[in-house]
Amino acid sequence: MTKKIIGIDLGGTTVKFGILTENGEVQDKWSIETNILDEGIHIVPDIIDSINHRLDLYKLDKSEFAGIGMGSPGSVDLEEGTVIGAYNLNWKTLQQVGKGITAGTGLPFAIDNDANVAAMGERWLGAGENQPDVVFITLGTGVGGGIIANGEMIHGVAGGGGEIGHVVVVPENGFECTCGSRGCLETVASATGVVRVARQMAEEYEGDSEIKAQIDNGEAVTSKDIFAAAEQGDSFALRVVDKVCMYLGLACGNLGNTLNPDSIVIGGGMAAAGEFLRQQVEAYFLTFTFPTIQRTTKIKLATLGNDAGIIGAASLARKFIKE
Amino acid sequence: MTKKIIGIDLGGTTVKFGILTENGEVQDKWSIETNILDEGIHIVPDIIDSINHRLDLYKLDKSEFAGIGMGSPGSVDLEEGTVIGAYNLNWKTLQQVGKGITAGTGLPFAIDNDANVAAMGERWLGAGENQPDVVFITLGTGVGGGIIANGEMIHGVAGGGGEIGHVVVVPENGFECTCGSRGCLETVASATGVVRVARQMAEEYEGDSEIKAQIDNGEAVTSKDIFAAAEQGDSFALRVVDKVCMYLGLACGNLGNTLNPDSIVIGGGMAAAGEFLRQQVEAYFLTFTFPTIQRTTKIKLATLGNDAGIIGAASLARKFIKE
Repeated sequence: MTKKIIGIDLGGTTVKFGILTENGEVQDKWSIETNILDEGIHIVPDIIDSINHRLDLYKLDKSEFAGIGMGSPGSVDLEEGTVIGAYNLNWKTLQQVGKGITAGTGLPFAIDNDANVAAMGERWLGAGENQPDVVFITLGTGVGGGIIANGEMIHGVAGGGGEIGHVVVVPENGFECTCGSRGCLETVASATGVVRVARQMAEEYEGDSEIKAQIDNGEAVTSKDIFAAAEQGDSFALRVVDKVCMYLGLACGNLGNTLNPDSIVIGGGMAAAGEFLRQQVEAYFLTFTFPTIQRTTKIKLATLGNDAGIIGAASLARKFIKE
Repeated sequence: MTKKIIGIDLGGTTVKFGILTENGEVQDKWSIETNILDEGIHIVPDIIDSINHRLDLYKLDKSEFAGIGMGSPGSVDLEEGTVIGAYNLNWKTLQQVGKGITAGTGLPFAIDNDANVAAMGERWLGAGENQPDVVFITLGTGVGGGIIANGEMIHGVAGGGGEIGHVVVVPENGFECTCGSRGCLETVASATGVVRVARQMAEEYEGDSEIKAQIDNGEAVTSKDIFAAAEQGDSFALRVVDKVCMYLGLACGNLGNTLNPDSIVIGGGMAAAGEFLRQQVEAYFLTFTFPTIQRTTKIKLATLGNDAGIIGAASLARKFIKE
């Protein structure tokens, strides 16, 4: 009999759950609010209760499940199943997530960080087409990513692998990054980064533009507004989007030049700009890569949306399936 | 009884051979000239003859050997054991290297490209300390490299993985590269690249400098001259070296930010500049990386010199050793 697997996508606002077949069919999904009060001590018990309750409700027996996988913010220790420094969960100190969930559910447990888990989801069942070499970039409040090479997640020696948001794309006079460095991709291609680029470019732009007028008037402008204006043909917004896509194309180009993946998949909230974004990133990608990469590495949009997290998380539990 | 392995480092001038124990001890090494006449048709037969002759000479039996590994220029097909487009060997068309050598020696054969093989050598027995995550950069006539992550070589979907020489470090107004792109690391950090950077900087430099005077006089200046002058305190040469190390530090920084390897190992002819080079690259590396990478990814000099090729090549044959 085939086993089911459970995926958990832990975020600062909600915890998303999914029950999947071992082939990745999502049979059930639900979510609960994340209770970050009291330094986040309710999070693990809430997750355990929610899983046990759901299995009771549907009269599912634990023996039908191979295990649980989870994606978490913060620094994750894969071996120990612990998390530290997940500030949006109020988890400042070391959290024994794995031990807690295994004790509370009786199921084997595996964990990785949220960006890596989303990358695994997109690689397995999304745009990555289950290829062994896939890079995933998520453009949202921040810029994150995950790199799969030879079918394995790249964590590096201290878990810093796949931190594509901190690739330096502006070597001189770049904006300061929260990481302490300057000119990181996140400073120019996250939701706030796009607005930052727009503010800087507005100082020198002299043409007619509604978006520029809004910025000059001190109105709140979002990256979504800028992409929407660009799609409508606003000349200033088009320049901003062009610059952001140049930075993204440079980062993707150098990932291509060093890793030659089958695809570089762009996801996250900003990927809602869709083909309009993808085509411009691809155009710069092609100028920054050598012929083998141009021919064989594709720039794609993510296809799983919010489900990438639970699907990738569940994929972590596939290792508990016995042949 | 433990088995021996044979490593072959095929280059445009010489073919180097090594006989190693399975633990990597070099027991014997020799070399022959590479005969590239007649579209390189003599190369494979010469290699076969040289191995068979050597084993006869030392009365070594084929049964003592697990197999042969080889590093080759050009585009290598690992599965098929073929090479194409190795122009310094006059191998323009597809060469059945693997089939030929296996038929001629009776031993199993494995192959990879020369930069990857050197990376494997440095990773296994050199500066890489046999860690699972190591990046190798070779600075010579060109700039090449190899990336090992999770203990596996990264080839990517079409063998373009590890082409660190084509990482773009000058996104705007960079020099043209042989690959068709612009601003590649190779255009500014290879032996000819360093001289190119010096020529460009000489146009604007007004201080006293012997090296600048030589350039202005049209004398032949090499990257070695520039590094030597910098070590002697020539102010112009110091600026050139600083700029080259900035580019190298940027490329290494972004490799660190995406892969978080245990070490990034710098080898090749230019690495003869030693600590003088390493420290300046490291200083820029630290400014271009985030704290986890700064703390855990080291910048090192290669330690195996010319032997990296035969050692890495031999390591390919370790997979033929039966437990």
